[in-house]
Amino acid sequence: MVSKSQIKLINSLHQKKYRKQHQMFVAEGKKVIAELLQTNVELVALFSTSPQNFATSVTATIISEIELKKITALATPNNCLAVFKIPNATLPLQNGLILALDNVRDPGNLGTIIRLCDWFGIETLVCSEETVDVYNPKVIQATMGSISRVNVCYTNLEDYLKNTKLPVFGTFMEGKNIYQEKLPKKGIIVMGNEANGISKEIEALITTKIAIPRFGKLQQTESLNVATATAIILSEFKRN
Amino acid sequence: MVSKSQIKLINSLHQKKYRKQHQMFVAEGKKVIAELLQTNVELVALFSTSPQNFATSVTATIISEIELKKITALATPNNCLAVFKIPNATLPLQNGLILALDNVRDPGNLGTIIRLCDWFGIETLVCSEETVDVYNPKVIQATMGSISRVNVCYTNLEDYLKNTKLPVFGTFMEGKNIYQEKLPKKGIIVMGNEANGISKEIEALITTKIAIPRFGKLQQTESLNVATATAIILSEFKRN
Repeated sequence: MVSKSQIKLINSLHQKKYRKQHQMFVAEGKKVIAELLQTNVELVALFSTSPQNFATSVTATIISEIELKKITALATPNNCLAVFKIPNATLPLQNGLILALDNVRDPGNLGTIIRLCDWFGIETLVCSEETVDVYNPKVIQATMGSISRVNVCYTNLEDYLKNTKLPVFGTFMEGKNIYQEKLPKKGIIVMGNEANGISKEIEALITTKIAIPRFGKLQQTESLNVATATAIILSEFKRN
Repeated sequence: MVSKSQIKLINSLHQKKYRKQHQMFVAEGKKVIAELLQTNVELVALFSTSPQNFATSVTATIISEIELKKITALATPNNCLAVFKIPNATLPLQNGLILALDNVRDPGNLGTIIRLCDWFGIETLVCSEETVDVYNPKVIQATMGSISRVNVCYTNLEDYLKNTKLPVFGTFMEGKNIYQEKLPKKGIIVMGNEANGISKEIEALITTKIAIPRFGKLQQTESLNVATATAIILSEFKRN
């Protein structure tokens, strides 16, 4: 069973303010939880509506579906929910390809982008402080477990880019055709906000403007979704 | 104002069954509506909470926010909503690149894929009959207006592929590295269901199995989201 104080704590963790205060986050669903259990992320509590085999020595506290409904952040809850400690963010190494997000706000987009980083072997994802919190339950859900393999850190993106020696790439309508550019093995790729793209302050720090060419006859499509644009750009950087 | 019978009709259109019966669908938001008004799609009714300039001779019926709440399918409604007639589906021409969906179920994914088709100049999207309905309000929303420029048709995908002379591509873990394959200008690209990929019946009709290589060290990422995989594949077919 779940105690009243646990219900209160877990529900508070659906808000960023309390995740920061308690330094804990919630993960739901067997797959995501199982992947996190295999990392160094410290488990605080684990609940399940039925006995689960997590392939570790961890045992879940069995709870009823009614109890699960009291603690889940999902409209259709999974059968298990865990609370983990937020790991200390490792300072990003300036090595290889790094993806940076300038104010990405949609949890689904951030989750999908983390999955893409995992697929393309991008180990570090640097987020501006305004980017949606990676420990938001919807982000954790959308990563499908990839969260355990990508180092996500939040920082002042402007300062971070001012202090790098790596080339900084950003997507702009007037940028150079990405299919024709020689793309390096080391560098920082910046993706912008869903509605406004890359901000003026960050644009000033971009060293190479790139563009994904449009092929539609009417050329009326205004933009690609930030996650699909990230997919195409990472594929281009990695394909050679 | 909106009459009781209009409220009843519009709400019924949030369900596929009634969209089929009435041959009408709902679009919300100025951008999507404005783009649809510039096509041959026939307008049935247009409501707005404030006067709007749609750059056509069309005038919206002004309604209150309370009335809008009674007819919207969205959690946070936009300020305008329109009802359109479902256009007759044009039989797909077997020309150029065609994208085919085998049982894609998520409305957001279908909407994002339609936006990708528009961006990459894919004029025809063939959907299996089990694929989520393109006139689902969440799909219309996610297309961001691209729906007006992509010909989407539903058919028995197995029969459709049996009767084509074009090469048929599908993504499989064991497929050939897409970065090394010579990809043709004409062909059908099949994308599968979110959980199960391409079905056995359709797999039998694939002439070339392709794969997007994974770069992650641990190689644990199970799959890419269908919309991001579509983005990478369309980019590869079009980049040359």
